[in-house]
Amino acid sequence: MHEQFLLLALENAQLGRGVCAPNPSVGAVAVHNGKIIAQSWHRGAGTPHAEQLLLKQLPKNIPEITLYVTLEPCNHWGKTPPCVDVIVDYGIQQVVYAYSDPNPVIVANNTSRLLREKGISVLHYPLPAIDAFYQSYAHWTSTQTPWVTIKMAQSLDGKIAGVDGARTEISNAMCADFTHQQRLQSDVILTTARTINQDNPSLNARVTGGDVAKPIAVIDPRLEMHRDATVFNTSKHLHVYHDVRYKNPNPQENCSYYPMPTVNGGLDLGAVIRHLGGLGYHDVWVEVGATLFNALHEAGLVNKTYLYVAPTVLGPKALSAYPHAHLFETASHLSWQIMGDNVIASFDWSKNQEGALCSQD
Amino acid sequence: MHEQFLLLALENAQLGRGVCAPNPSVGAVAVHNGKIIAQSWHRGAGTPHAEQLLLKQLPKNIPEITLYVTLEPCNHWGKTPPCVDVIVDYGIQQVVYAYSDPNPVIVANNTSRLLREKGISVLHYPLPAIDAFYQSYAHWTSTQTPWVTIKMAQSLDGKIAGVDGARTEISNAMCADFTHQQRLQSDVILTTARTINQDNPSLNARVTGGDVAKPIAVIDPRLEMHRDATVFNTSKHLHVYHDVRYKNPNPQENCSYYPMPTVNGGLDLGAVIRHLGGLGYHDVWVEVGATLFNALHEAGLVNKTYLYVAPTVLGPKALSAYPHAHLFETASHLSWQIMGDNVIASFDWSKNQEGALCSQD
Repeated sequence: MHEQFLLLALENAQLGRGVCAPNPSVGAVAVHNGKIIAQSWHRGAGTPHAEQLLLKQLPKNIPEITLYVTLEPCNHWGKTPPCVDVIVDYGIQQVVYAYSDPNPVIVANNTSRLLREKGISVLHYPLPAIDAFYQSYAHWTSTQTPWVTIKMAQSLDGKIAGVDGARTEISNAMCADFTHQQRLQSDVILTTARTINQDNPSLNARVTGGDVAKPIAVIDPRLEMHRDATVFNTSKHLHVYHDVRYKNPNPQENCSYYPMPTVNGGLDLGAVIRHLGGLGYHDVWVEVGATLFNALHEAGLVNKTYLYVAPTVLGPKALSAYPHAHLFETASHLSWQIMGDNVIASFDWSKNQEGALCSQD
Repeated sequence: MHEQFLLLALENAQLGRGVCAPNPSVGAVAVHNGKIIAQSWHRGAGTPHAEQLLLKQLPKNIPEITLYVTLEPCNHWGKTPPCVDVIVDYGIQQVVYAYSDPNPVIVANNTSRLLREKGISVLHYPLPAIDAFYQSYAHWTSTQTPWVTIKMAQSLDGKIAGVDGARTEISNAMCADFTHQQRLQSDVILTTARTINQDNPSLNARVTGGDVAKPIAVIDPRLEMHRDATVFNTSKHLHVYHDVRYKNPNPQENCSYYPMPTVNGGLDLGAVIRHLGGLGYHDVWVEVGATLFNALHEAGLVNKTYLYVAPTVLGPKALSAYPHAHLFETASHLSWQIMGDNVIASFDWSKNQEGALCSQD
């Protein structure tokens, strides 16, 4: 029973994924006599938490309600009052939560103790799916850096574009849908001015129900992004990272500019990623060309890589994803997913400590 | 019931796969009162057919036996007597077979008519798994050329060997097992003297139960195969195809030599494949380097391609499988199979007529 209601709370939380940063996405379900009587999810920082939205839907003082919530309820004043107070005020009988909030303030205040002191039963009921859901939030909380996921679509011969980098559709419609879901559920999309100028992408999430504009971070060392790029119309906000030695003569609307130090002639990528964490983004989704794809991996800044592989051969003159050997040699955890006539390889770099990749026989 | 017994007959037939050429592999099951009372399979040309082996196991004249057989029973004298006679002599009540023998002699003699004339009930009960099993036999029967299956193991960047072609283990143990099964179930393995001289492979089928030696065909235009190559000890027989202009000064034991015409400086590959068909081989399994891999595809001589893809990057200096663009563009039927941390892409070139590959979105 607990698992079923918590997974329903997770379904609610997923609806808020990608819009709540710097807050985590949270889903909640109220159950009375074994029946679901309300569901809700957090809509974003500054708005009421999932628990508060949930209890608002209910008539006053129904006895014996169990509240299922994906994340441990908060116990401190932020932009909204502590959920613990709201739960106590309503007279909830039992709280079941799946993931312990790693936020040090919440840990220190001890939600379980606060609730139990008021006679409320509390159960911590972890589930693997919900642990996975909060992986990036936990990573961001403990390191102040975001969880970085990168994708690349390639042919069988490791090419990502045509001759001279000419844009080519490589992967199929199923992979495109996967990309749009990933964009939707990320907090910010990281790209480069080079990609924007070459391909002029929209970089929004085109999903059932319409197009969703996302915050976009652009690596633009020399401030060369075209002023009529499509992203100016299709993004929620643009964060532009440029070489500290270049000053922007003419800032554009809806853009923030951040001067950055350089390393070996390029922007300090670690500093860019850390800065995005400082802005409160937990999940960064990266769509870039071969140069930055390799640089981010080589700098150890990637947490997860999705390689879309399509059954085409673009030939030796096409642009390669792999200027060097051994890019993926340290990956310890890999899985494949069949996507029609394409496959996606998922490399999970966070599991590197657990063992070496076994790819030889 | 019919399906279950025919699939058991297929399991029997699979045991003979790869040793029966020029005969097809056949499995048979005898059923009495709904119970299996005997099973058998054909062991190879010149030995008794599956039906004959089966009936030999049975006491005389059990009434009401149904004989399940993967392939239509033969009706003519070859190296052994016609199965139709043996079935009639025993007094079988019903024959259920899955695949109609495309051999024109058998078609002309009409097994069903012969059996029905003797009061035996006959049912043709086709099954997709058995249709697939006889695909190569039907292809060979109608075209006199064998069914050609080729495999290649590659890295994510389309490389098949290290710098200067240095041998590298690329794919994993699951793929190796797949290769050994494919070798086992093929009639002959086609390779090149270049591959033998560079890698010195055994090219036998190393399967549970031991090593199985196979006939090997070698493309060796200038008769340069090393005289101490391992294949001389690990193969059943060697068929050596050489340029007609080169004469073999010193033939080796257990080898047959075939002078071949050349086309554009290389052996006429179509002539080699047709010659293998003339030797009675239905299934050719090909393990070669990049040059012949491409040449066979470009000449339209491949029926099925297995690409093993491993999650490694060998880099720009490693040997590529793909000297040209667009190698796989005409494939209409592709499927992927996950093999641990590798995947196998299967291209079925025989389905080309049915539609174009949809890999763009």
